[in-house]
Amino acid sequence: MTEAVERLTKKSEDSSKWYLQLVRMAKLADYGPVRGTFAIRPYGFAIWERIQQDLDARFKATGHQNAYFPLLIPESYLMKEAEHVEGFAPECAWVTVGGDDELEERLAIRPTSESIICDFYRKWIHSYRDLPVLINQWCNVLRWEMVTRPFLRTAEFLWQEGHTVHATAEEAREEALRMLNVYRDCFYEVLAIPVLTGMKSPSERFAGAVETFTCEGLMGDGRALQAATSHDLGQNFARAFDITFLDENQERVHPYQTSWGFSTRTIGALILVHGDDRGLRLPPKLAPTQVVIVPIWRGKSKGEVRREAEALHRELVEAGLRVEADLDEEHSPGWKFNEHELRGVPVRVELGPKDIEKGQAVFVRRDTGEKEFVERRVAARRLIELMDEIQSNMLRQAEAFRDENTRRAETYEEFREIIEEKRGFVVAPWDGTEETEQKIKEETKATIRLLPFEREEGKDLISGRPGKTAIFARAY
Amino acid sequence: MTEAVERLTKKSEDSSKWYLQLVRMAKLADYGPVRGTFAIRPYGFAIWERIQQDLDARFKATGHQNAYFPLLIPESYLMKEAEHVEGFAPECAWVTVGGDDELEERLAIRPTSESIICDFYRKWIHSYRDLPVLINQWCNVLRWEMVTRPFLRTAEFLWQEGHTVHATAEEAREEALRMLNVYRDCFYEVLAIPVLTGMKSPSERFAGAVETFTCEGLMGDGRALQAATSHDLGQNFARAFDITFLDENQERVHPYQTSWGFSTRTIGALILVHGDDRGLRLPPKLAPTQVVIVPIWRGKSKGEVRREAEALHRELVEAGLRVEADLDEEHSPGWKFNEHELRGVPVRVELGPKDIEKGQAVFVRRDTGEKEFVERRVAARRLIELMDEIQSNMLRQAEAFRDENTRRAETYEEFREIIEEKRGFVVAPWDGTEETEQKIKEETKATIRLLPFEREEGKDLISGRPGKTAIFARAY
Repeated sequence: MTEAVERLTKKSEDSSKWYLQLVRMAKLADYGPVRGTFAIRPYGFAIWERIQQDLDARFKATGHQNAYFPLLIPESYLMKEAEHVEGFAPECAWVTVGGDDELEERLAIRPTSESIICDFYRKWIHSYRDLPVLINQWCNVLRWEMVTRPFLRTAEFLWQEGHTVHATAEEAREEALRMLNVYRDCFYEVLAIPVLTGMKSPSERFAGAVETFTCEGLMGDGRALQAATSHDLGQNFARAFDITFLDENQERVHPYQTSWGFSTRTIGALILVHGDDRGLRLPPKLAPTQVVIVPIWRGKSKGEVRREAEALHRELVEAGLRVEADLDEEHSPGWKFNEHELRGVPVRVELGPKDIEKGQAVFVRRDTGEKEFVERRVAARRLIELMDEIQSNMLRQAEAFRDENTRRAETYEEFREIIEEKRGFVVAPWDGTEETEQKIKEETKATIRLLPFEREEGKDLISGRPGKTAIFARAY
Repeated sequence: MTEAVERLTKKSEDSSKWYLQLVRMAKLADYGPVRGTFAIRPYGFAIWERIQQDLDARFKATGHQNAYFPLLIPESYLMKEAEHVEGFAPECAWVTVGGDDELEERLAIRPTSESIICDFYRKWIHSYRDLPVLINQWCNVLRWEMVTRPFLRTAEFLWQEGHTVHATAEEAREEALRMLNVYRDCFYEVLAIPVLTGMKSPSERFAGAVETFTCEGLMGDGRALQAATSHDLGQNFARAFDITFLDENQERVHPYQTSWGFSTRTIGALILVHGDDRGLRLPPKLAPTQVVIVPIWRGKSKGEVRREAEALHRELVEAGLRVEADLDEEHSPGWKFNEHELRGVPVRVELGPKDIEKGQAVFVRRDTGEKEFVERRVAARRLIELMDEIQSNMLRQAEAFRDENTRRAETYEEFREIIEEKRGFVVAPWDGTEETEQKIKEETKATIRLLPFEREEGKDLISGRPGKTAIFARAY
């Protein structure tokens, strides 16, 4: 019952404190005993389940199958791809004892599964007839992180990782882009997060990839978040793991691979993009509870109001909505309003004796705070419409915020000013060198978030050399 | 293409070899580099996904929510419940290094999650209003096993583990039994495995439980398999982990807990119960492919037969069946028949020029081998009926096998003879002492699989003391 008393910090005052407090108060996650590990509580996990269902259907519609690969990766496997080991080995947790025995070789808990999956693919792939291989797995991974924050950066997290194998470079490139678009569609249509998509600069590529594509979201505090990535691995892993196939000309060649991942980090994005001073705001497609009915009762009216609330609850459940009736008698309606706003329930339905008399109900939208009086007999129909309206409106709000916070910089001074004072995305030409990228990072803490697919020409703000559009921001 | 040539060992000749070969040939699983670890390949995983969906819906229908708890458990947490640590610590894999640092405390990869979940429950539960807690998680667990076999006994496996907390002993007992029945229903209705249910003897209880309930299946070779268990934990873990709540009288007391689990081991049971000399036989509710269309074409007829096969395929997909049309031109129909029988596809539809002429198709059932000629225009309707018929028939076949292989023993000599020569379940009175249980185990390798809920009185075959019915078998 501490939630009744505790006040949520304002997002605008201290976004970081607000975030941690909200995660706790809305019962989304809780800290585990090992640094950086968390439990995802039922309310948070119900959001993840809906994201999973949506993505999984999209993966299957694009021809992918699920499988499961081992958690433990021998150190020697991780070592096979040079860049990959450099990127991941320093942040692995290592198993060195099994039962009572010291192991001869250390085993990493997978930080990502390319190296172990490639070992299976080496055994499974022999001929062009075995291609493409289009496999995905839903699993946990672990990276020994120093600084962690629930959902956004955790030692252990849940994700899906797709791993595909193709006969040609073109097919692999197409696949990497196809899955980038699957992610983008899910962000727009389900999470209501208008991510930008493009390529990473070479220094920000996945360890071992020839190209990394990314979805970048803009959080409410003006910082960017890498929300999902898709990698064109070329033949790097196939060479390192000796995957070959006989092509149609009976020649033995290396195939081309992709990998792509989407994690529980996106729940952090959901909180940061849509949350406000009152708490979460959940898009109806993901909300575990879409509608909460709060009866407003006093003395004698209690019996009647309860019956009406129960009847409405049944009707809305039958209409296919995810509804809760908050019939608790201990808390006041005001307490309940706060609680369900904190939890981000898209619509609150208030029902009092006068509403019953007038044959109406009061709907309060979480996305806008707007109140509307609705005839009781059309309540279900109107709520179903409202789910779509709120879903679209939340995307529009987030798009407007993103657009307001995407600025062109004409000079380096302007660039720094925007990054310091306004944050958001900064659009500026980049000469393609790691030197200027590094300088900007050191001096402004901004990194290249992505290189858009359509890039304009211009002059690099620092070097003055010819460059092309890049999008910068400070990032999570 | 090796599958075309390789011959499956007969189940009756060498059940163990048959099993391993079938797992490989049907592409259900493959060995990982670390002993006892396996990849579950897409065909095997598709079976697991259907089991998951079915169970998950049953869990939600009985009021449970999903969540996710950390993979890594500090050694000191495992140590808190004395029996629990004794049962699980010897078979843990231990993380001792994180990044570049030696850890101060070893971390176990969860062998089961009671100990870490209890730590969260201690924080989440304060009042009787917080009860019951009804949480489930789907995850991987790891037990450092010496001897492993795909699905049946693997170091890492996938499962669900339910963990509930209740105000009273009665509620916890009811919950443990409710979930045992959920498992039993899934085994009967979906896996078509007629498990027996009952209690474990004290020596076979889960480490830390006051009662373990079990579903025991009888495999095709006459050995029993513990297929899923549900535990009444009493207050053992609540005491060890200091979980308390204020009851309605404002007294601080320990709650009562349950846990229950169902794992990928059941895929092993599915293979062993239903498989035969030709390969898998999959119940229609779990089969990734329920119907395979094999066109029988020669020379000129090829175009027409292909078109008809494609049209039938579309029609059956629209009717909601999971259908494949095997239009590969490289392999003969005979090769395809073998292949799809190996994969356990419930019905094969053969379609040749003469069938098209006669407006018919030939259906061949995998469960009985029966052929039937069906009018083309009612093909979809008949196949939908057949799915139900095959599902029921497979359960009946397995029930008949179980009943034929469940025998009463009147003397210890008879008991030993049955166990040695016929295997199966043996029903006999047991005096309830560990002494006789141990003697039987040593002398016959049979263990008490379960104590039925309804037990008859009789004389223990060894001690001659009064006893009650127990069911014995050699087990996996």
